[in-house]
Amino acid sequence: MKTIQVVTNDVLGAVSQADIDSLSAAGKDGLAKLTNGTGLGNDFLGWVTLPKEITPALLDDINATAASLRDNCDVVVAIGIGGSYLGAKAVIEALQSNFAAFEPAKGCRVLFAGQNIGEDYLAELQAYLSDKKFGIIVISKSGTTTEPAIAFRILREQLEKQLGREEAGKRIVAVTDAARGALRTLANTEGYKTYVIPDNVGGRFSVLTPVGLLPIAVAGFDIHALVEGAAAMAKATLDGSNTLALKYAQTRNALYNSGKKIEILVNYNPKLHFLAEWWKQLYGESEGKDHKGIFPTAVDFTTDLHSMGQWIQDGERSIFETVLSVESSENELRIPFDEANLDGLNYIAGKRIDEVNKMAELGTRLAHVDGGVPNMRIVLPEISENVLGQLIYFFEAACGISGYILGVNPFNQPGVEAYKKNMFALLEKPGYEEATAAIRAKLG
Amino acid sequence: MKTIQVVTNDVLGAVSQADIDSLSAAGKDGLAKLTNGTGLGNDFLGWVTLPKEITPALLDDINATAASLRDNCDVVVAIGIGGSYLGAKAVIEALQSNFAAFEPAKGCRVLFAGQNIGEDYLAELQAYLSDKKFGIIVISKSGTTTEPAIAFRILREQLEKQLGREEAGKRIVAVTDAARGALRTLANTEGYKTYVIPDNVGGRFSVLTPVGLLPIAVAGFDIHALVEGAAAMAKATLDGSNTLALKYAQTRNALYNSGKKIEILVNYNPKLHFLAEWWKQLYGESEGKDHKGIFPTAVDFTTDLHSMGQWIQDGERSIFETVLSVESSENELRIPFDEANLDGLNYIAGKRIDEVNKMAELGTRLAHVDGGVPNMRIVLPEISENVLGQLIYFFEAACGISGYILGVNPFNQPGVEAYKKNMFALLEKPGYEEATAAIRAKLG
Repeated sequence: MKTIQVVTNDVLGAVSQADIDSLSAAGKDGLAKLTNGTGLGNDFLGWVTLPKEITPALLDDINATAASLRDNCDVVVAIGIGGSYLGAKAVIEALQSNFAAFEPAKGCRVLFAGQNIGEDYLAELQAYLSDKKFGIIVISKSGTTTEPAIAFRILREQLEKQLGREEAGKRIVAVTDAARGALRTLANTEGYKTYVIPDNVGGRFSVLTPVGLLPIAVAGFDIHALVEGAAAMAKATLDGSNTLALKYAQTRNALYNSGKKIEILVNYNPKLHFLAEWWKQLYGESEGKDHKGIFPTAVDFTTDLHSMGQWIQDGERSIFETVLSVESSENELRIPFDEANLDGLNYIAGKRIDEVNKMAELGTRLAHVDGGVPNMRIVLPEISENVLGQLIYFFEAACGISGYILGVNPFNQPGVEAYKKNMFALLEKPGYEEATAAIRAKLG
Repeated sequence: MKTIQVVTNDVLGAVSQADIDSLSAAGKDGLAKLTNGTGLGNDFLGWVTLPKEITPALLDDINATAASLRDNCDVVVAIGIGGSYLGAKAVIEALQSNFAAFEPAKGCRVLFAGQNIGEDYLAELQAYLSDKKFGIIVISKSGTTTEPAIAFRILREQLEKQLGREEAGKRIVAVTDAARGALRTLANTEGYKTYVIPDNVGGRFSVLTPVGLLPIAVAGFDIHALVEGAAAMAKATLDGSNTLALKYAQTRNALYNSGKKIEILVNYNPKLHFLAEWWKQLYGESEGKDHKGIFPTAVDFTTDLHSMGQWIQDGERSIFETVLSVESSENELRIPFDEANLDGLNYIAGKRIDEVNKMAELGTRLAHVDGGVPNMRIVLPEISENVLGQLIYFFEAACGISGYILGVNPFNQPGVEAYKKNMFALLEKPGYEEATAAIRAKLG
């Protein structure tokens, strides 16, 4: 199997190996807390052993449901937000063509909704779906999260108008709590096909549950291979034979302790753009608390070398980069020779474009390290289901360890409630009467 | 005319009005430098008076070219990077449907290339174009920038194979230097239609030149209205009747001086995602130098409230937010009533979705300000060509002023050369022999 690697030697201008090693006890302790469940947030450790616990029978069942949706729908709308959106979006975007949106869908197109409160977004989606055969995957533990609940109400009504309630029910799949909650109740009443979000897996760690697996399967990708990659990484991480997660967790904390406050996740392949979005939730929501935590952000290079490149090269020295470096591209395309050579490119004629991209990557790393920006590299042998599975588990394990090194509970998100409480008060939600009065008084 | 507004009262927990006012002399001085050309980088001030200098005849000519491309092409590929990509991309994405990619193009689809060195990206684009009638807008001052030059070589070859050289030449438009450079020479030789990038307008300030205007016109949007909005903002900014640019520039510098190192540009409408990308180049490339400058980053809310929301609420108190607040949405869609009300949404049934979005925005602002995150708001009456034109000029003027307040040259980008030099050395470009030897010795 082709495995991912982590290379850290280009951070050593900013921190010493001793700085990194000084965190190894904390790192090992963090890993132990993940396996023995003695750390903060230990009721949300289901993801640790998830990959090996996913049965082939479950994957086959998901594939069968996906096949049925594909057979009956032109479009499947996956409704969810946060971890119920980003994981599937990241994997699908990584694996499909850059121009998939513009081409007729092979099988069935997966679109997303419920990840915002856009009146235009939903109105335009309704218009788009008006002459399509479509299905819905609704993903929500409670069924009452505002964004997906609004989207589901609207799209379910549209689907029932198109097909009648009973037929619509055959094209709706609910991914939700095993027993409780509004969506579970509705699914049982209406007879929807359902999948379970385990109680002990938080949203941002849920991509390898049906939350992520079902939309990925509908999009036509190999969820067996995805889970196999994750399971291999899980086994090696947990038995200690693979220390990449420790290495990444310790190195980024050493950098943070030295004053590097912003981590920029870099890719040189636009297909990885949403992988970075998924990573931002994973790390931002796990570590951004108690007025601390690395600020996670991302760039797409070389695109953003012509945008954020100047800042990264010459701005405040408060940043480090973690580069997703993909070894091989899927297609082969060479730069043509041109007799006139007005553009001066003949010196690279005959080369593969990816070779130029690799030299841009190497040249940038050298320039940024010289300029005072520590660099780490996560090397992906290729972009495939298996490698993405490895990467996902690696990032999850490293995130848990990193949060424990930092000294926070990596598995809660108390800050997410503050705006919701205000929003409910402003919208006069029943039960928020006191908050409504308080916020009105405040606004005057 | 509906005009944009800037609201700054929600920063006053972090800085005082006196802190902001203490920068008003520097702000006025900065504005004066933009108008009298006595500041650093004064050879790149063409954008200051650009909007009123664009003649209706030029706009009509651009529209005629756009109409001809639309008549003859299913797809037009705009080739460019940095400022030759982001401005057009930002305006087109802001104005078109969220689902435009999936729908048959009205008229003609605009795609982008040359904004990366993706072998897969270009191979997949070639495959997509293989059965399409397509045209090319190639945008490059020199014609030798690596990314667009590679893309243009490949796509021009493809187009010439499809149509023959002469016919292909009728579907290629070059936006380039008036007299010099590889692309100018080629365009003159091949008889391409051309437009000029003025010498005194830098890439990141070029969206209101043919660089941005031609792709925007091909996509079917009203460039007269865009320029009118910008011209109105330019006039009012330069005659002193509109002080929004000064207000924004002073406030963000006051926040930076108080230790707020990261500015997060926030939207509540996903159509503005690429406006933020354009803004990141504008501010990052203008200010990220001399080891200083605010780090510009962006989020799409409410999507990212379920991702970066936790960090913003509870992480390091080193951030402030600037919210693009859009007053009206284009469509009208209300939340349906549901008898069963399992999702508990009936308390907002009948409300417009945008009203809920607005309460999310207000609730978030209150929560973030309470949590120690200063907030500014840029209020857009709507998303339209005119308002986007205002916003573009506002951001450009504020950027120049802000850079002068910071004490940098806002109009150069010396740091962008470092990686390019390394890349050319690694690729053994003629003329880089010494650098090649040095970099090889370094790599060992």
